[in-house]
Amino acid sequence: MSVRVAIIGAGPSGLAQLRAFQSAHAKGAVMPQVVCFEKQADWGGMWNYTWRTGLDEHGEPVHASMYRYLWSNGPKECLEFADYSFDEHFGRPISSYPPREVLWDYIQGRVRKAGVREFIRFNTAVKHVSFDEDTREFTVTVYDYEQEQTQTQVFDYVIVASGHFSTPHVPEFEGFERFSGRIMHAHDFREATELTGKDLLIIGSSYSAEDIGSQCYKYGARSITSTYRTQPMGYKWPKGWEERPLLSRVEGEIAYFADGSSKRVDAIILCTGYKHHFPFLPDELTLKTGNRLWPLGLYQGVFWEQNPQLIYLGMQDLWYSFNLFDAQAWFVRDCILGRIALPEKAVMQADSARWRAEEESLDTTASMYEFQGSYIKHLIEQTDYPNFDIDAVNQIFLKWKTDKKRDIMGYRDKSYRSVITGTTAVPHHTRWLQALDDSMAEYLRETASQGGVNTLRQR
Amino acid sequence: MSVRVAIIGAGPSGLAQLRAFQSAHAKGAVMPQVVCFEKQADWGGMWNYTWRTGLDEHGEPVHASMYRYLWSNGPKECLEFADYSFDEHFGRPISSYPPREVLWDYIQGRVRKAGVREFIRFNTAVKHVSFDEDTREFTVTVYDYEQEQTQTQVFDYVIVASGHFSTPHVPEFEGFERFSGRIMHAHDFREATELTGKDLLIIGSSYSAEDIGSQCYKYGARSITSTYRTQPMGYKWPKGWEERPLLSRVEGEIAYFADGSSKRVDAIILCTGYKHHFPFLPDELTLKTGNRLWPLGLYQGVFWEQNPQLIYLGMQDLWYSFNLFDAQAWFVRDCILGRIALPEKAVMQADSARWRAEEESLDTTASMYEFQGSYIKHLIEQTDYPNFDIDAVNQIFLKWKTDKKRDIMGYRDKSYRSVITGTTAVPHHTRWLQALDDSMAEYLRETASQGGVNTLRQR
Repeated sequence: MSVRVAIIGAGPSGLAQLRAFQSAHAKGAVMPQVVCFEKQADWGGMWNYTWRTGLDEHGEPVHASMYRYLWSNGPKECLEFADYSFDEHFGRPISSYPPREVLWDYIQGRVRKAGVREFIRFNTAVKHVSFDEDTREFTVTVYDYEQEQTQTQVFDYVIVASGHFSTPHVPEFEGFERFSGRIMHAHDFREATELTGKDLLIIGSSYSAEDIGSQCYKYGARSITSTYRTQPMGYKWPKGWEERPLLSRVEGEIAYFADGSSKRVDAIILCTGYKHHFPFLPDELTLKTGNRLWPLGLYQGVFWEQNPQLIYLGMQDLWYSFNLFDAQAWFVRDCILGRIALPEKAVMQADSARWRAEEESLDTTASMYEFQGSYIKHLIEQTDYPNFDIDAVNQIFLKWKTDKKRDIMGYRDKSYRSVITGTTAVPHHTRWLQALDDSMAEYLRETASQGGVNTLRQR
Repeated sequence: MSVRVAIIGAGPSGLAQLRAFQSAHAKGAVMPQVVCFEKQADWGGMWNYTWRTGLDEHGEPVHASMYRYLWSNGPKECLEFADYSFDEHFGRPISSYPPREVLWDYIQGRVRKAGVREFIRFNTAVKHVSFDEDTREFTVTVYDYEQEQTQTQVFDYVIVASGHFSTPHVPEFEGFERFSGRIMHAHDFREATELTGKDLLIIGSSYSAEDIGSQCYKYGARSITSTYRTQPMGYKWPKGWEERPLLSRVEGEIAYFADGSSKRVDAIILCTGYKHHFPFLPDELTLKTGNRLWPLGLYQGVFWEQNPQLIYLGMQDLWYSFNLFDAQAWFVRDCILGRIALPEKAVMQADSARWRAEEESLDTTASMYEFQGSYIKHLIEQTDYPNFDIDAVNQIFLKWKTDKKRDIMGYRDKSYRSVITGTTAVPHHTRWLQALDDSMAEYLRETASQGGVNTLRQR
């Protein structure tokens, strides 16, 4: 009997795992009995946009934190699949910062080509996972919303690919219960135009704060006040955007800050991050970590040291993303296929401790993505995942940081060179700040300046 | 060993069950080993207002569908506890339609007096219930967010008191994915002033639609368009409120209706109801029903016929509410204490079928609350719950319907007479439409017209 593998989630990391297995199978390996459980009706995870917030049509928590008008906030050249380039997918060069729908299409293109959709059970939510120490098997309990019934299935491996940007961390501030405006977490943010003309307060100083604030500015918010706990983001914000120290309380519609200043605001968006949250796992199998580059307990960043039949994908703080999932998925695959042997627990823990010690010594931004790059390099060297120039990607990250620092509202108009194909991105036909239509049709629309040559393949 | 009872939820029905047991205990009965699991940090269920929407501080679905500025939409004389009157609680007559905080205080008053808080485990979410056919015991698995751990406990009875107004039914309409305004379900509605000056579309024609629309009108929405599937609500709406047939699709910010008409709208509120949703129960123990007066499968409306160690409280479509929960809780208590014997399954099912047949024959609104009244009467006759004049309450329901029909924006200014104390309610110091501050402090504020005599006891 072949090995039985459950994958929880058909987002980018779960799909990477399916592609990894299919890739080996295409080269002659035995395909394990893989079942990927996806609670949504379609694949793509976070990239599968929904207007829904809170609970979905089944009463399950909505997975997506995705909002309309999201454009990649990092160059696509930093996340490109090494086995499936943007050029292959689109048939022509595109810009470095595509919008959500374009990236979703790209993610789907690879797995459509690989033909792995049949392994996915959609509208099926994992409710509970248990492990039997005697049989060394997992029992996975799911609810199938199509058949409207609870089902259980037994597996040798469980791969948690449910991500860590779905369960919001939602702190309370004094006065929230009586604040007279809207309060929402970034997880529930969908539509910037609802905030046109509004005075907006953003709590947080990381990517969500920067990007949601930028969107709201782009779509006509009257003012943006973002707050920081330790230090301001420090970008050259456009007129109408200011940074203040942390919110201390609200009274009516007035927000008071740690420096004693105050401001009237219409709405508050909590860009306060997400929790690693796995309500379907028993305590002893649950990863507990903040969002950091090297969570402890995972050998090579993926195998649960206490029981390496349990695997977590993509649990790190992410600079790299799609390609990191790939590197992990290929490594996981080869361990499951017996091509790579896992060491004993003590050795795994010592290995993790070394990575963690290095993580804790990092002190510059550049050192952080270099650390993550070296981790990916380390994984890729052990498998047949196509090698790519990670040092060059690190350089793109560096350029990206510089470009953002120079022009926070204009960095998305920059172009970079793919390390996979060597193609240099072409500027989008419209500058990001003016590009209000984020649809793929508008994005791929041919323009006169592109010479009118239709190099886009019909999809 | 005394009987072990789990109660899931410390809202009005769970608290009624605690009060029922305590009441018998006060008269000499043995108190079962009762544990009430409540996922929120405080009691009151729906009446425990939170500004949160979607997922709560623990990553659990937010229970409350309660919004700010909610005033009772039925006379308090129709829901008064027979063992704890409004007069006893407030020490003076109050108006017939109090706001949320006042009702919450009233609910709490009784259970504070009863001293049952010690039976409740707060911040503890029930994750799973299983039943062992051999031992005839339930195992209840909970997650304790204070101790941050999963725990299990064994019980003889499980009482589901988690309500059925927490999991929204959220239909999708064509174009929602591209609608350029806000879309929310009533479950996530919190603050009417966010919609001041807006053109509002409300989907639905039941209580949520009527009440949320009225609130938004009161707090300055520019226009309200509510839609119906079968027939309009038909009230004499104020200027700016119109009813149209069901939404067929949206395009951009334009809503198109079944009659071909269209209207530009800023926001859409789905007042499309709730699901009976019990994700913690196995399929064979799960009640599946729409919101109706007599769901099948529950003997006397409460005992799960397939396994009467499982009990559901308050699963009916509710005209009566707090006093219905009481009637059920006292009956359940006496069955558990062995004072009332449950018949065999076939007898239970036949009994339920009779109630259901009667329910299906109901054709007027009056016949519906009379049916529910007769059900309550039937329960109360079997226990020591204080009798009260249910026919008189039915008359108040009738008056209420008439008053609403006459003046949908003014019916809350009417006063009724308590069937428990004989006290006639006093008009609130401010007409509902002008009463923008819904706090208990403002509600209980003494006014000159009340003669300045402070009859309010210090609480």
